[in-house]
Amino acid sequence: MTRRPTLAVIGDGTAEADSEVYAAAREVGRRAVDAGFRVVTGGLNGVMEAACRGAHESPSYREGDTLGLLPGSNAGNANAWVDVVVATGLGHARNAIVARADVVVAVGGGAGTLSELAFAWIHGRPIVALELPGWSRELGGRRLDDRPRPGTPDDDCVFAAASAAEALRVVVERWQQYRPA
Amino acid sequence: MTRRPTLAVIGDGTAEADSEVYAAAREVGRRAVDAGFRVVTGGLNGVMEAACRGAHESPSYREGDTLGLLPGSNAGNANAWVDVVVATGLGHARNAIVARADVVVAVGGGAGTLSELAFAWIHGRPIVALELPGWSRELGGRRLDDRPRPGTPDDDCVFAAASAAEALRVVVERWQQYRPA
Amino acid sequence: MTRRPTLAVIGDGTAEADSEVYAAAREVGRRAVDAGFRVVTGGLNGVMEAACRGAHESPSYREGDTLGLLPGSNAGNANAWVDVVVATGLGHARNAIVARADVVVAVGGGAGTLSELAFAWIHGRPIVALELPGWSRELGGRRLDDRPRPGTPDDDCVFAAASAAEALRVVVERWQQYRPA
Amino acid sequence: MTRRPTLAVIGDGTAEADSEVYAAAREVGRRAVDAGFRVVTGGLNGVMEAACRGAHESPSYREGDTLGLLPGSNAGNANAWVDVVVATGLGHARNAIVARADVVVAVGGGAGTLSELAFAWIHGRPIVALELPGWSRELGGRRLDDRPRPGTPDDDCVFAAASAAEALRVVVERWQQYRPA
Repeated sequence: MTRRPTLAVIGDGTAEADSEVYAAAREVGRRAVDAGFRVVTGGLNGVMEAACRGAHESPSYREGDTLGLLPGSNAGNANAWVDVVVATGLGHARNAIVARADVVVAVGGGAGTLSELAFAWIHGRPIVALELPGWSRELGGRRLDDRPRPGTPDDDCVFAAASAAEALRVVVERWQQYRPA
Repeated sequence: MTRRPTLAVIGDGTAEADSEVYAAAREVGRRAVDAGFRVVTGGLNGVMEAACRGAHESPSYREGDTLGLLPGSNAGNANAWVDVVVATGLGHARNAIVARADVVVAVGGGAGTLSELAFAWIHGRPIVALELPGWSRELGGRRLDDRPRPGTPDDDCVFAAASAAEALRVVVERWQQYRPA
Repeated sequence: MTRRPTLAVIGDGTAEADSEVYAAAREVGRRAVDAGFRVVTGGLNGVMEAACRGAHESPSYREGDTLGLLPGSNAGNANAWVDVVVATGLGHARNAIVARADVVVAVGGGAGTLSELAFAWIHGRPIVALELPGWSRELGGRRLDDRPRPGTPDDDCVFAAASAAEALRVVVERWQQYRPA
Repeated sequence: MTRRPTLAVIGDGTAEADSEVYAAAREVGRRAVDAGFRVVTGGLNGVMEAACRGAHESPSYREGDTLGLLPGSNAGNANAWVDVVVATGLGHARNAIVARADVVVAVGGGAGTLSELAFAWIHGRPIVALELPGWSRELGGRRLDDRPRPGTPDDDCVFAAASAAEALRVVVERWQQYRPA
């Protein structure tokens, strides 16, 4: 049995439903399920909602494909497109868990997203960052520090992507080159 | 849309595959999926494995119905019947998260299970404990302290069950009487 | 340089200041500082306050001898006798950290205390439990499961103590027999 | 009674003892104790060790002034200048707790430091960043996102400082202007 991999979509929880960031996150969610991933988010609104919603729009979607790791203890706070809720009760420290998905894709994002990018880097995860306003644009193409990340390819960095379509192309091409400890 | 509820099965990670405890946990997992629940465990062996394995044996089972919340950071340590792995990296503190499932069923269990029973009580969850060797037998029929648990029925306690079948009868009858904050 | 060991006092956060439990916890805190320990608690009221307050009453007390590991994120919620506040923001999961002190002494206690006793057992810590109403009385003299705890003496169990004075005698006699991994 | 405030020093755990970064962190630790703060770090080596060591060199230093929040569960891994060890067992998620100190000062730093800077921002803490190689230089003078941080001054940002001496001048001048929720 091969377990389906997980792809975390991280970004601004306040992104409006008519924004470019929301649309991109939605497309990332949809394409992630198309590509065989389960979608993980922090379970709340904005980019987290968009990614779960997009996952539901994939022709490959099945109930159970979206996982929401809430900061609080009330499962009722999850957005409507989260199928599996984990109410961690850990507050922002849950960001460290979101960033342990098999692959991490950033869509814009503020300080919370920045903490998740940093953790994903520490955890040796492949990271793809969309060129949209926020930390994802700023960190695309960079390394987050100079220490070697064991089990990563020679050109390891936060991979930049100009669109959701490109992001998933990079994910599919790259993620199996990573072997986090 | 109604989200499927989650049922955590907790118990001894060292239970052998031919033990009574393992058989009971397996049946709890199967009957939980029969009853419409998703199964949550700590993702490792013994009772955790049994519950996930049983879930896969339900006629209602669909891929994605078992969630494993690992203590460590390596998803590869999950048992073979975990569909969705969350590698928390929190060590034993992840027990606090397992115990936030909508319903908690204990099957035997040592000190780790005891910590989960205590957290489930603190979190106001409905708890069912099988009459099998370990903390589940010892705490069945009891309250874990005298403080009122808001949103619980008048006869709130750790409900004892003589078998997996009875455990699920109690779960189905009782769990919607609980409204944790 | 030898670092001073830490002693966690765990128990009911709702114990009243005129109760027997509060008086015992206060004496445990005082005697712990007398014996060279730093006092660790969950930082809130009842037994946690009593232990910190008692620590301040030891002739050996120096500012910095009481550490409070709060569940929430607001340091202002610590009781007045906590010198060093760590606002963990982890909710009840912080109980897992309290239970990593070098020694754990339980004074009464409900479900939260029970979770800490379970974690202290898992972590291989020496545990002393006062014979006062609550989980400390119930678990004194027992083992919390049958698995061996490496680095512990042959008669390893939750040691029962009839008074604060006896508790500290047991702590002083016993704690260096424990070598948790 | 007024509780002494805490100042976290964050930075690269691999900084060598003869590096500029180590020297600066050591001076920050010393000046922090001079100014009445208790010093909090992640308890390990490099910048964490330097800050604790510097604290010990302050004329105002008293045993108990340095707190180390370890990622692992073994208190023996703390550096020699940590007086109070909290072995969290949470792995990198403990960074979220370090970043809840009353004030945060960054000295260089890689991805781990970046996660702490992000959390300190989320938690509404005053942050001072030294102009030394690493994330502290890159983020000095910036805001980490555009969302308002309630209880902060009008010119709220990550304050840049050219030296340890300047960092403490900024801390002393600024930190009481912050009133995190």
